[in-house]
Amino acid sequence: MIADTPEPPYYAVIFTSILRKNISGYQEMALKMEQLARIQPGYLGFESAREDLGISVSYWKDEESIIAWKLNVEHMAAQEMGRAKWYSHYQLRIAKVERAYSNLQGF
Amino acid sequence: MIADTPEPPYYAVIFTSILRKNISGYQEMALKMEQLARIQPGYLGFESAREDLGISVSYWKDEESIIAWKLNVEHMAAQEMGRAKWYSHYQLRIAKVERAYSNLQGF
Repeated sequence: MIADTPEPPYYAVIFTSILRKNISGYQEMALKMEQLARIQPGYLGFESAREDLGISVSYWKDEESIIAWKLNVEHMAAQEMGRAKWYSHYQLRIAKVERAYSNLQGF
Repeated sequence: MIADTPEPPYYAVIFTSILRKNISGYQEMALKMEQLARIQPGYLGFESAREDLGISVSYWKDEESIIAWKLNVEHMAAQEMGRAKWYSHYQLRIAKVERAYSNLQGF
């Protein structure tokens, strides 16, 4: 559940969102996109949690991998549905992970 | 709830964690640290959500602000209690936010 990422540097896409009231179809699409992301070149891992606010962080080898995933045809359709139907508010941030610390050695 | 951060570049501290079963005192400390972070120099915002996995992202003006917060005496005591008592697993990543997109203009 905590992504087992390599030594930095690598990239993080931090997607923060608030859903609308009617989110019919959202859960299925979110799961499908998570599975599709996992087989993209440069994918390193994924973490997510939601209370009222949802935070999803995907990790990528480099910027090129992020751009390719952004332009994936199925993902573009999902992004469009997200904007039109599911997300009331969202913020997407692309960040370069420079340092990392954990207690996961025995994980 | 979605942090109202300025134009990039700025920094994100992505803290991902799994709690132990007995987390007596954790909620109070988490709230106290959130309030204390808010008044630190260079603090830009905070987002968090928890299911089994917890993700907290704090945003900072620069690396110096992050280091100063890391070394804050009350925060150091909280970090030590977190490692010793509350977190079963955690991963902390320091990342430079290079680009950001949102639909928050009317937020």
